[in-house]
Order: sequence, then C-alpha cells, then structure tokens
Amino acid sequence: MSLVVVGSIAFDAVQTPFGQRDRMLGGSAVHFSLAASFFTDVRVVGPVGDDFGDAEYAVLHDRGVNTDDIEHVEGGQTFFWRGHYEYDLNVAHTDDTQLNVFGDFQPKLSPESQSADMLFLANIQPDLQREVREQASPKLAGLDSMNLWIETARDSLLKTISGVDLVFLNDAEIRMLTREANLVRAARALMEHGPSTIVAKQGEYGAALFTRDSFFALPAYPLEAVNDPTGAGDTFAGGFLGYLDSCGPDAASDDPTLRRAMTYGATLASFNVEEFGTERVSGLTREEIDQRFEEFRLMTTLDSVSTTAD
Amino acid sequence: MSLVVVGSIAFDAVQTPFGQRDRMLGGSAVHFSLAASFFTDVRVVGPVGDDFGDAEYAVLHDRGVNTDDIEHVEGGQTFFWRGHYEYDLNVAHTDDTQLNVFGDFQPKLSPESQSADMLFLANIQPDLQREVREQASPKLAGLDSMNLWIETARDSLLKTISGVDLVFLNDAEIRMLTREANLVRAARALMEHGPSTIVAKQGEYGAALFTRDSFFALPAYPLEAVNDPTGAGDTFAGGFLGYLDSCGPDAASDDPTLRRAMTYGATLASFNVEEFGTERVSGLTREEIDQRFEEFRLMTTLDSVSTTAD
Repeated sequence: MSLVVVGSIAFDAVQTPFGQRDRMLGGSAVHFSLAASFFTDVRVVGPVGDDFGDAEYAVLHDRGVNTDDIEHVEGGQTFFWRGHYEYDLNVAHTDDTQLNVFGDFQPKLSPESQSADMLFLANIQPDLQREVREQASPKLAGLDSMNLWIETARDSLLKTISGVDLVFLNDAEIRMLTREANLVRAARALMEHGPSTIVAKQGEYGAALFTRDSFFALPAYPLEAVNDPTGAGDTFAGGFLGYLDSCGPDAASDDPTLRRAMTYGATLASFNVEEFGTERVSGLTREEIDQRFEEFRLMTTLDSVSTTAD
Repeated sequence: MSLVVVGSIAFDAVQTPFGQRDRMLGGSAVHFSLAASFFTDVRVVGPVGDDFGDAEYAVLHDRGVNTDDIEHVEGGQTFFWRGHYEYDLNVAHTDDTQLNVFGDFQPKLSPESQSADMLFLANIQPDLQREVREQASPKLAGLDSMNLWIETARDSLLKTISGVDLVFLNDAEIRMLTREANLVRAARALMEHGPSTIVAKQGEYGAALFTRDSFFALPAYPLEAVNDPTGAGDTFAGGFLGYLDSCGPDAASDDPTLRRAMTYGATLASFNVEEFGTERVSGLTREEIDQRFEEFRLMTTLDSVSTTAD
C-alpha cells in the first residue's frame, strides 16, 4: 500500500511559554509524512526553495519518506511561518507568513503519486485541493481544512469535500461549515456531501469519529507537559491514514480498524506536542508508539456491568 | 448501603433556545437524589418553604427518595432560580436568584444521615459544607463546588476538600483552584490536599477520572438534541455515587468499579439534558439506563493491535 500527501513544507519560528525555536522544519506535509512513515510508504508533494537543504531532506529520508515529488523552485525561498502561543496553548497567534514558493504552487502529481492507494490533501486552498484530487485515482482520499477557507471559500470547500472519503476538521470548524450547532447533526450533515467518515478533532479533549452507523470517541493522552502544539493536527492525520493504509484496501470500512487508526493518530499527536516541531516524532520508535497505543486502550477500557466483581 | 446528599431544593425558571419552563422542580440535591435513586437508598437534606407541596414531594417519593430530613420552614419560600441559556448551551446566564429559606440554611443531620455510608456535599458555601462534613461519619465523602467559591472562599474550599475523598469539578475550575494550567498536574495538585479521586467534568466533551495511579476518560453521549443542561453536573454526581454506594464499602478503591460509576454518572447526565429539569430522569427505568451504559461501552471499545483481523 502507499500514501501520498500534498501540502506545505515550511520553516517555522515558534514561541510558546515553554521555549522557542527560530527556524525549524515544519509544514503540514512534513508533519503528516513523518507520522505516517511508521506504518506505510509515504510520498510528499510540495514546493521548497534554495534554503531547503540536505539537513531538511535528511529528516524525511531517515524516516524513509519518499521525496521524489518535492518540487525544488530555483531561486525561491521555502514557505515561512512565525507564530506564538499563549499560556493557554489552544490560543495561537500568527506573527508572520511568507508564502514564498508556496504562493505559486501548482501541484503536479507524478505517475507514482497519481496511482497511490491513499491521498491526503493537507490544508491548502480548496480549489487547489480539488485540482490535485482530480489528477489522482486513490482508493481513499482524505482532507483537512481550516476556518479561513470556511469563511472565504465555503462553496469550493464543500465541492472538494464531496470528492473525498474522509474529512479531518476541528469540531468548531465542522459546526461552522455546516451551520449546525450540534456536533452529531453537523457531522451527519457533512456526510451528506459525500464523505463516509468524519473525524472531529477536539484538541485537549481528544477526537471523535463519525461514520454512517457508528460513533467512537477517544480522549487526548493525559500529558503533564505540552511544549508546542504546532503540527499536532497533521501528525494526527498522518498516524491515522498511515495505519489505515497499512491495513489493506478494505480497512476504511472496518470499524475496529478505523478505531485503531484514530488511536494511532492520537498517539502520534501526543508525542508531537511533547517537543518542538518534528523533534519528538522524528526520533520515535514503533515500540514507543505501540506502548502508548496500549496505554490509550487501558485508559479507556470499560467493563460491562455483568462483570462486576462485588 | 446508604447515601445522603446535602444541597439545594429549588424551583427553577429556565429558558433555552428549545423551550422554557416558568416553574419546575430543581436544585442540586433534587437532581442528585433522583439520579442516585436508581442504585441505592438516598436521603435528601435541604430546606423548603410553604410553596413546596405534595406534587414536589411526590417526584422524590415516586423514586423512593427519603425526604425525612427535608426541613420545612414555616412561612418561608423555597429557593428560586431563573436563568437562560444561549444557543451555545454551554453559556448560562442567571437572571434572578431568590435564596429565601436557603439563605438561612443551617443543616442539621439526623442520626440516620450522620451514619450513612456515603455523603455528598452539593455546591454550597464551603464553610457550610465543612460543618456538615464534621457532623457525619461516612465511609466516603464527596463534594461539588463552583467558580464563585474558588474566587471568594478559596482557602475555606481547600480546607473542606481536605476532608473529602472525592471531588467533582469542571476542568476549568480544577485549574483555577490549583492555579495550574495543565489539567493532569492540576488534578495531582488537588489530590495532595487529601482526596484520592478527582472527577473533572468537561461538559460536551465528557469527563475524566484521576486517581493516584490511574486515569480514565469518557466522552459525552453523542446526543442530537439537548434541551436543558440545568442539573447535569448534580445528576452526574448522583449516578456516580449512587452506583458506587451500591457496590459496597471497598468500591471506591476498585478501578473498574470507579469507571463504571463514571459511566453511570455520564449516562444519567445524558438523559437529564434531553428534557427540562427533572422531566426525563424522574421517568426513567433501570433498563433504559443499563442500555445506554452498554452503548457507552460499545462506543469507547478499542481492540488491542494484536487482534487485527487483516
């Protein structure tokens, strides 16, 4: 099986109450592919500039990520984002955005990417996501988006969503997009546009999974120290789709498999926020991941009433 | 086993975007005791006025709640609260509070209440909670509180908390009380004051359970229609402690039992918000409750990786 992600490759400058980095590898496609790399073969599609060098490629190559479809724009500079977080890490502020080569990005999928089993459209302008979707013929396509596109390109986003199987959005974004205050009804409404599976990300509260006939919810891992939430959502999606891709062509219609995919997504996201940028995830082992997966299972285990011991 | 609750008995006038009631039975002790009545013998301690009549007593008696310790204040009026909720039901506004007989409430526990197995101190002034606690000798004591007392009587509240085993608070209140932004560390800090178990209520996101060596989290039941959240927290506590009391003296130190208690609490709370006031819970059957408990179990079930079918 194989998985392609189309999105941003970036340098980030991030300040949180717990530290800062002036320039570190980031971007949705990077976070996604590192997380997915623990489970399956991943290809990254995205543009970089002359400032993207061997050290940055090495982070991806060390995790076996295929970078053949990274487009190097001669004379250009890589997408740059600077932001800071408040003491409440749920509140992020963007201080500077330099689109650079990302501003003119016109994704062209190679034949290998066109025929990959799964495609993830990271958060970019929905028209562009749709153009990518139309170039490829995956067995399963997923996307992420954000409030900016819901506000400025809602119709286009809904059109793009009608062409994918799986949507990852924050719960507030799902409500905003469907104009429905109740999350259960909002998720149902979104499914009516086409997708069979909706993942509602809920930050420090975990995530919920809606399919046509099932509901699953998972808390966030109870971390005592969160240093940098940047990339948590893309890391979640990478763990989710990476695991799903590793389970074969029918995985997306199997409820227990989807639930394990949720848990791998949450597991990778929990590691991601422990350190800045890609620092924690890039150095993980599958053993550490499976151990935290098992902790998730234990902390949500509920016996039926009939097993009462008293 | 037996359970006593000390708190408010009230008439509520509530308006939500989905309807309104001008005068209905409410109050923390009422919501708590109705929920607990499905599992164990409950006694209510609280004051009422001349306006509290047979119809109100009947709601409690029909569920087998013992009202011998309800104090009827001659010539007085029962506590009255009027409030409304925004379209986002998490935002409540108090429009009128008439303490009436509740303003001079000096709880006196009868010998039966003093010797009950479990005691729940619903949200009242923490000095008063402590006076009640000192009159009784339960095997387990729990309490609820609110941001008002954290802001105006923090030291007293912490002193009261040092005398109980189990604390029910919203997650934001736990952070505020301990002055610790991270919930895991905040719950640990609160346990250092004495309680062995902290329940962090998270509204539409469910609830988390912290003990000295375990963590458990449960999502909220995915309701498509929520009509009135009034009393959900007390109903949660009532389902939790009612079930716990029914499991015998060692229940509070048994992790699987505590998790089932969480789930019964969440189950009762989910029914409570479906209709106004006590309307839904007062008419429930144990069969309906156990059925929703089982739905909770199914919607949180996560297989271990080794059971992968592919």
